[in-house]
Amino acid sequence: MSWTAVALGGGRGLHVTLTALRRVTDDVTAVVTVADDGGSSGRLRRELGLLPPGDLRKAMVALAGEDPASAMWATLFQHRFGGTGALAGHAVGNLVLAGLLEQLGDPVAVLAEAARLLGVRGRVLPMCTEPLEIEADVSGLDDDADVERRIRGQVAIATTPGRVRRIRLHGPGGPGEAPRGCPEAVEAVLRADVVLLGPGSWFTSVLPHLLVPELHDALTRTAAKKVVVLNLVPQPGETAGFSPELHLDVLCEHAPRLRVDAVIADVGAVPVPDRLRRAAAALGAEAHLVPVAVAGAPDRHDPAALALGIRRALAGPADGTGGASSTTLLDEGTTRGGEAPWR
Amino acid sequence: MSWTAVALGGGRGLHVTLTALRRVTDDVTAVVTVADDGGSSGRLRRELGLLPPGDLRKAMVALAGEDPASAMWATLFQHRFGGTGALAGHAVGNLVLAGLLEQLGDPVAVLAEAARLLGVRGRVLPMCTEPLEIEADVSGLDDDADVERRIRGQVAIATTPGRVRRIRLHGPGGPGEAPRGCPEAVEAVLRADVVLLGPGSWFTSVLPHLLVPELHDALTRTAAKKVVVLNLVPQPGETAGFSPELHLDVLCEHAPRLRVDAVIADVGAVPVPDRLRRAAAALGAEAHLVPVAVAGAPDRHDPAALALGIRRALAGPADGTGGASSTTLLDEGTTRGGEAPWR
Repeated sequence: MSWTAVALGGGRGLHVTLTALRRVTDDVTAVVTVADDGGSSGRLRRELGLLPPGDLRKAMVALAGEDPASAMWATLFQHRFGGTGALAGHAVGNLVLAGLLEQLGDPVAVLAEAARLLGVRGRVLPMCTEPLEIEADVSGLDDDADVERRIRGQVAIATTPGRVRRIRLHGPGGPGEAPRGCPEAVEAVLRADVVLLGPGSWFTSVLPHLLVPELHDALTRTAAKKVVVLNLVPQPGETAGFSPELHLDVLCEHAPRLRVDAVIADVGAVPVPDRLRRAAAALGAEAHLVPVAVAGAPDRHDPAALALGIRRALAGPADGTGGASSTTLLDEGTTRGGEAPWR
Repeated sequence: MSWTAVALGGGRGLHVTLTALRRVTDDVTAVVTVADDGGSSGRLRRELGLLPPGDLRKAMVALAGEDPASAMWATLFQHRFGGTGALAGHAVGNLVLAGLLEQLGDPVAVLAEAARLLGVRGRVLPMCTEPLEIEADVSGLDDDADVERRIRGQVAIATTPGRVRRIRLHGPGGPGEAPRGCPEAVEAVLRADVVLLGPGSWFTSVLPHLLVPELHDALTRTAAKKVVVLNLVPQPGETAGFSPELHLDVLCEHAPRLRVDAVIADVGAVPVPDRLRRAAAALGAEAHLVPVAVAGAPDRHDPAALALGIRRALAGPADGTGGASSTTLLDEGTTRGGEAPWR
C-alpha cells in the first residue's frame, strides 16, 4: 500500500526523516517548526517580521524532484551568498521564500508555489502560519542546580548550557497567546496513515509541535500510526546527558495524553534496551531497536536504514497485535565499538 | 512574416522596446547593458563582484509569459524588500539572478534558467559577460564651460550636472582593456531581421553597446534593418538640452561607421522635423515621426503605439526604396499643446 505520511520536526532532523520517508511513500507531508530565530532565518525574521524560512526551505529541498531543473533550483535554494557583506550567509531559498511571503502573504500558498518550482513530491506546511517564540525553563545555570531560569528564543535555548526542563510556545502576541495551528497541517495529521515525530533538536524542533493545541489535539485524535524516531546522540545545550528513554519521558511530560505506536532507536545508541522498552511502553509504544546510523558515523542517520526501520515499525510485531509488550530488536547482538554515545 | 528582432538597451527604455516588440513578433532577443553601479544592482555588484542583474531582470520581466505561474514569478522578480534593514530595496529577482550567477557562473546559462521560470518568450542576453564601467567626459562642471572632466560610473554620470561629451567603456581589467562582447549577443545581431537601439538613457544604456568592438562590428555587418527609437524627453544629467537630432549626432560620433535604416521619434517631441530628417539622413536613415507617447503623458512611450511605429518603419516608405530621402510623417498636422519637451 502507499502510506499517507506526515513528518513533524524541523532542521536537519526533519531533512533526514523526509529523505527516508520518500523511500517509503510518495505521499509525504512535512509539518515544520516556525520558531527559529538564528542564522539567515533569524535575520529575515527580525528584519522583515516574516515566518523564519530556513526549516521550511530544508524540508522543501529534502522532497525536491530529481529531474535536472528541480535539482538546479533545489541547489540554488541551499546556496548561501559568500563575501563579507549584507547578504553573506543568506540562503537564496530563504530570500525567495521571504519575497513570496511578502508578496502572497499566506505561507501555505507560498510553499505551494515554491514546491512547484522544486518539483516537490509531497507537501511542506508550517506548524503555524505566524512566527513563534520558544521559552524554556533551564536548570543548572546557577550554583544551586535546582534553580530554574527562563530562557527565550531558539538560539538562546540551544546554546545556553544547563538542562532544559520544559518549554512553552508563545504566539506573535507574546506570552499568554496560544499559537494557532496551521489548519492544513492539522488536517494532514488527521488524514494520515502514519505520523512521524523526530529525530531532531528535541526541545526546539520536535516537542514544539505538541504545544500547538490544534496539532496536539489532532495527534491524539488521528487514526494514524504514530512513530517516534529518537536521536542518535544527545545534543549539547538541549539534551546533554539525556538517555534515550529520557527523551520519551520529556515527550510524555509535554503531551501526557499522547499515545505512540512505535519508537525507533538505533540499536547501537541504546545502552540499556530494557529501559527504553519500558519508557516506550509507558507511551503505549513498541520499541524498535534497529541499525539506523551511518556505518562509522554513529551521530548520523542513514536514510536508507531509517526507511527500512520505518517499514518494519509500520509492519508491526510478528503477532500483529501492535501491543507494547513485544519488541522488534534487530542486531541486538552486534558488538558495539567503544562507549555508547549516551553519557 | 515573423521577424527575428534584437533590441539593445537597458533599464526602463529597453522594457518599453521589448513590451512593444512582443506585439510585433515572438522572436525577440534583448541585449542588455551591464555597466550599472547603482541601487540594488550596484550593491550586489560591489558586494559579490557579479554582473549587475537589474537591467537583465527588467528585460526578463518585459518578456515574461502571461500564464499565472509566469506572471507570479515575474511579479516576485520585481518585488523589492521593504523595511529598513540590510535587504531593503533589493529586488527579489536581482537576488535570484545573483545566486544563479554564483552557482552557475555563466550568465547566459543563468538567464536561460531564469527565462524558463518566467516563461520568457524570446531571450535575454548580456551585452558582455563581465561587469563594465562607463567613463564619461563631461563639460560644464567648471566656470570655463569648455573644460572637460572625466566622470566614472553610471550613477555618477547620470547624476552629475553638465553635458556628457563622450563615453568610454572599461572591461573588468580597468582602462585600456576593451570589453568583450557576449558571443551569443553578437550572433543574435548577425542573424537578426531587425535590430532596435533605444529608447533609454542615451549615454549609459544605449550608446555603450556601440563601444563593445564585437557588437559594433556585428551592427555594421548584419543584414538586419536597424531602427533607432529616440527618447521622448531629454534626461537630466545625461542629455539635458539635447535636441532629438543631437541624440543622433552623438550616436554617429560614437559609431561613425554605423548605418541606420529608420529613426522613430514621437511626432509631438520633435520641434523642427526637417532637422531631424537631415540628422537621420546623415546616418542613412529615414525619419518616422509618429505618435508613440502615451496620450497625456508626453514623457512615456505607449507600447502599442510604438509597436505600430516599428511595424511601419519596417514596412519602409511607400515607394519601397528604403532610401533616406522619403519620410513617413504621420499626424504632422496634429496640434501640439504647449512647448515641445525639448528645451
